[in-house]
Amino acid sequence: MRALVLDADGTLALHNRPRAAAGDECVIRVTAAGICGTDLELLRGYAGFSGIPGHEFVGVVEESSPAESAWLGRRVVGEITVGCGRCGGCRAAGRGHCDVRTVAGIRGRDGAFAEYLCLPSRNLHAVPASLDDVTAVFVEPTAAACRVVEQVTIESGTRAAVVGAGRLGLLVAQVLRLHGAQVTLVIRSRTAGSTATALGFETADAESVAPLARQFDVAVDATGRPAGFAAAVALVRPRGTLVVKSTFHGETPIALSPLVVDEISVIGSRCGPFARAIELLDAGRVDVKPLLAGIYPLERFAEAFDQAKQGLKVVLTMV
Amino acid sequence: MRALVLDADGTLALHNRPRAAAGDECVIRVTAAGICGTDLELLRGYAGFSGIPGHEFVGVVEESSPAESAWLGRRVVGEITVGCGRCGGCRAAGRGHCDVRTVAGIRGRDGAFAEYLCLPSRNLHAVPASLDDVTAVFVEPTAAACRVVEQVTIESGTRAAVVGAGRLGLLVAQVLRLHGAQVTLVIRSRTAGSTATALGFETADAESVAPLARQFDVAVDATGRPAGFAAAVALVRPRGTLVVKSTFHGETPIALSPLVVDEISVIGSRCGPFARAIELLDAGRVDVKPLLAGIYPLERFAEAFDQAKQGLKVVLTMV
Repeated sequence: MRALVLDADGTLALHNRPRAAAGDECVIRVTAAGICGTDLELLRGYAGFSGIPGHEFVGVVEESSPAESAWLGRRVVGEITVGCGRCGGCRAAGRGHCDVRTVAGIRGRDGAFAEYLCLPSRNLHAVPASLDDVTAVFVEPTAAACRVVEQVTIESGTRAAVVGAGRLGLLVAQVLRLHGAQVTLVIRSRTAGSTATALGFETADAESVAPLARQFDVAVDATGRPAGFAAAVALVRPRGTLVVKSTFHGETPIALSPLVVDEISVIGSRCGPFARAIELLDAGRVDVKPLLAGIYPLERFAEAFDQAKQGLKVVLTMV
Repeated sequence: MRALVLDADGTLALHNRPRAAAGDECVIRVTAAGICGTDLELLRGYAGFSGIPGHEFVGVVEESSPAESAWLGRRVVGEITVGCGRCGGCRAAGRGHCDVRTVAGIRGRDGAFAEYLCLPSRNLHAVPASLDDVTAVFVEPTAAACRVVEQVTIESGTRAAVVGAGRLGLLVAQVLRLHGAQVTLVIRSRTAGSTATALGFETADAESVAPLARQFDVAVDATGRPAGFAAAVALVRPRGTLVVKSTFHGETPIALSPLVVDEISVIGSRCGPFARAIELLDAGRVDVKPLLAGIYPLERFAEAFDQAKQGLKVVLTMV
């Protein structure tokens, strides 16, 4: 099969690879896959991953173990973490936090920038026919956005700042607004600003947020960059909450004492509820059209990754 | 009055200063005051404070405004933060988080390493006669320890690690144990270990905690040092909670991505409930005797500060 492979030296290239075998999992023929900020970070060494990246996808189940044959032919999206179900991490926090987990396209398991990938059936979610392939690619990041409202109480009038108006920030902002928050998007570029405005959000320029310092009950760092943490924490009121969505390689210098003095809660936030994301996307309550920057065939991955660096969503198609 | 004064260049010296005037506050004759890790950090430039440090004290109200004369002659301890009650910080999170607050001995207000200090009567708590002066000095840090159980759910069987077995860590550990937690104290020195053992705690050496990684529902960084954060976060299970008690000058390099991937909550924790602290100390449910390293007259402050650097509590007396 054709597959994008990330080498240990950080080079991404198109290869021919043997097609994956089902074993006790399902083989999914990928039709489309999205490029995420984490994919861009993998190319910089985040998570030390080599193999086939890609963890936002939609596809059709082509093979399964006999016990799972009900999945054959179904159009699916998939949760990306595969846990053992027995270790301390699984018992403490579920299979998503397995001590020996694999994560499609991120850790110890090939991902979706290929014609096929494997996942256990318990990771799969059927996609309604009403949801087109490109929108279905947004299920995984929309679920990640929905995770925030599982972790933090958002209610009518909650003042929320989302720092970073890229593909993830714009999803988080929409989900927070759906739950009643008054959302301000903190932007760095005019492009991001126009997308945010098109979605009806108030925006503030990242260079001139000083008047907004300590004004928000909740701030979300969705920048994907080290500077995002300090930018977001400055916006949080005393005893407020900072949600961190950014994952990147390396360490960030952080002044911890202000977190103590202001009693800020900092909450790391990762993957979220797929069923809720499918429901929101299918009902059109989260609008992904303004977030889509381009669709490219797998072969044109170099252009696709270049465009993804601008911050909006780029989708690769395998057909 | 005699007072220890911290100059802008970080020098601490005994001075004669005019005695404070009551205004609309109370003047308290200080009988004893404790040296806290924060005081040691102030000498290194934390918070940019100059003036009279000291924020753990017991004393007797000697002057008050006419409206507050009921306080005259009462033996008191005092909450150290004075807020305006009107600003955004006060409205969002109470006077302790006032945007323009003063904090006795830490920010814009003289503290307790002197014969007298001033505080508003609303900051004061009467001390029962059964509580001796030296124990009463522990009310402020015990309240800070009690703050943790206001912020984090601690119940029977909660696995808790306290990193740093100094004066604050040993108070936090006792409060967590009172609420049902199974507490492990992570220690660096044999002295700290013997105090922890005397109090009946399990201990683990900070140099060999690798087998305890990801084992605790809650970890508390009470080290007062930059390295404490990473040491504590390594002990927290996925979706667990790290409580940060340390305040110190400067920035710390932190790997943020593990917080996101493991969905750790980091909670800054500062001052706590005085009434609860008085109750616990008066009932002997928190034992401070093993935490007391020495008692010195104010004049011998240099020896006192030297001994405080060893990690246990040193008390200055003004009589």
